[in-house]
Amino acid sequence: MRALRWDGTRLSLARDVPDPVPTAGEALVRVRLAGICRTDLEITRGYLAFRGTPGHEWLGEVVAAADGTWRAARVVGEINPGCGTCPACVSGLGRHCPHRRVTGIVGADGALADFLVVPLANLHRVPDAVGDREAVFTEPLAAAFEILDQVTAVAGARAVVLGDGKLGLLVAQVLSGAGADVVLAGRHDAKLTRARALGIRTGDPAPGADLVVDATGSPDGLARALALVRPRGTVVLKTTVAAEHNLDLAPAVINEVTIVGSRCGRFAPALAALADHAVTVAPLIDAVYPLDDALTAVAHAARPGTLKVLVDAGA
Amino acid sequence: MRALRWDGTRLSLARDVPDPVPTAGEALVRVRLAGICRTDLEITRGYLAFRGTPGHEWLGEVVAAADGTWRAARVVGEINPGCGTCPACVSGLGRHCPHRRVTGIVGADGALADFLVVPLANLHRVPDAVGDREAVFTEPLAAAFEILDQVTAVAGARAVVLGDGKLGLLVAQVLSGAGADVVLAGRHDAKLTRARALGIRTGDPAPGADLVVDATGSPDGLARALALVRPRGTVVLKTTVAAEHNLDLAPAVINEVTIVGSRCGRFAPALAALADHAVTVAPLIDAVYPLDDALTAVAHAARPGTLKVLVDAGA
Repeated sequence: MRALRWDGTRLSLARDVPDPVPTAGEALVRVRLAGICRTDLEITRGYLAFRGTPGHEWLGEVVAAADGTWRAARVVGEINPGCGTCPACVSGLGRHCPHRRVTGIVGADGALADFLVVPLANLHRVPDAVGDREAVFTEPLAAAFEILDQVTAVAGARAVVLGDGKLGLLVAQVLSGAGADVVLAGRHDAKLTRARALGIRTGDPAPGADLVVDATGSPDGLARALALVRPRGTVVLKTTVAAEHNLDLAPAVINEVTIVGSRCGRFAPALAALADHAVTVAPLIDAVYPLDDALTAVAHAARPGTLKVLVDAGA
Repeated sequence: MRALRWDGTRLSLARDVPDPVPTAGEALVRVRLAGICRTDLEITRGYLAFRGTPGHEWLGEVVAAADGTWRAARVVGEINPGCGTCPACVSGLGRHCPHRRVTGIVGADGALADFLVVPLANLHRVPDAVGDREAVFTEPLAAAFEILDQVTAVAGARAVVLGDGKLGLLVAQVLSGAGADVVLAGRHDAKLTRARALGIRTGDPAPGADLVVDATGSPDGLARALALVRPRGTVVLKTTVAAEHNLDLAPAVINEVTIVGSRCGRFAPALAALADHAVTVAPLIDAVYPLDDALTAVAHAARPGTLKVLVDAGA
């Protein structure tokens, strides 16, 4: 099969990769669409020392599974296959399993390929009401919904979202849908214009917010968030880059701010929101490339001002 | 009156400071005992650019107040006089009032003196069951109890307290009293021995704790806490010093850790615990100096291995 491969120094499109073989608990999935995420770009800069096929945002079709009920199902898949037996897995938090792999990020090949294998436990059927180009946003949208699993009292909150990238635009919609009064702050006029077209209020937020989400992906995001949040307020940290030199957390202590690290989320709320058209994702798509042009797609995704670039393995 | 004074470059004991004059809403308090806190030592290194009389841990006796019911009362006082009218004050969080002063720290003279003035709203009568040398710990003990106001699910938690200073020993007792299984980790054999004498378990904590309190006062405390807390666990940050170079918060995001900044607390739970003898504080006292020897007391408090040094203004 074809697969985008990262060998630690070079990204290339290989055409002779053996088809993956599912185990008894896995499905073989033919990829229809895969999204390129900032994490994929960071992998090509050495993030987590990953080697193999990147890609963790995808929509596909089951072509083989021991459990026949999955055959031909249109599916998306949670990206953290846990061991299934540790306390985290048993409590429903397999995405924090200490033995987990992470599709296309840690120890498991991803979706920028013709096929991938996925544990059946991680699969979700896509409702008919959700189009392919919406379903491929399930994973990043689940990461936005994760905030609602972690932070109470979002309804009525004065919220600020820092960052006008894909995640920021999804988070702003999710928080608005949960009843928060949201302002999104960004640095890219073109992205902010697109945010406004989605009904998101943009601007220069005043300090004193109840909730600030750092979706900047930038080392200075946390310090900016701490300057905007009210005493006893909450900062949600979605940025995994190292903080700036000498980050001063004294304001967080003096103002008793709660900083909530937030990563992946459950797929169910995201799929439900897509089925209800409670969140708009299609306008985030900048381009769709065939898998044969995956290298061009990655280069496009890395261009400043880009929101989402998709790869269509069927094209 | 006598007062320890910090002028920005020099700490001195002045003997000719005018007695403070209370306004209608304030009491004039004769100080009996005052504790020297790490913050007082930091003030003499420039912290918050304070000028005046330090000292925010104290026990005293009201000598004058417009409201006569306070006269001769044995009292302690919350250290953040708020404006009384802003939303924070109205909601009972005057210690986060944006216009607040902080006794002996920001814009208000403190207790290392013969007298201080205190807003009546900040005063608490000391129960008879609480001795002077216990009551003087109300403020730091309230800071330990603040954790219970901010973090739920302490009962049954596997908790680690980092730091064998005064605050660490108080926090360990408060968390144990709330039903947590606590291990205190420190670096000073003498202090750890004293912790064990208070019934606190000490040791080298294993990773995977539900709750880790950074009471180290050290720039590397947060990184150590993040290495010990389980995914989805909580770190309480009591340390106000700047973080180390390039603090990497990616583990907090990946493991979805909640970091709770925590500072001062309500006095009521602390006084109740002292009255019930639920917390033991007297063994933390290393020395008591008369106010005339306050400079010697400060020097003693700064010596490594010291827990609490008191100043007795009546001696």
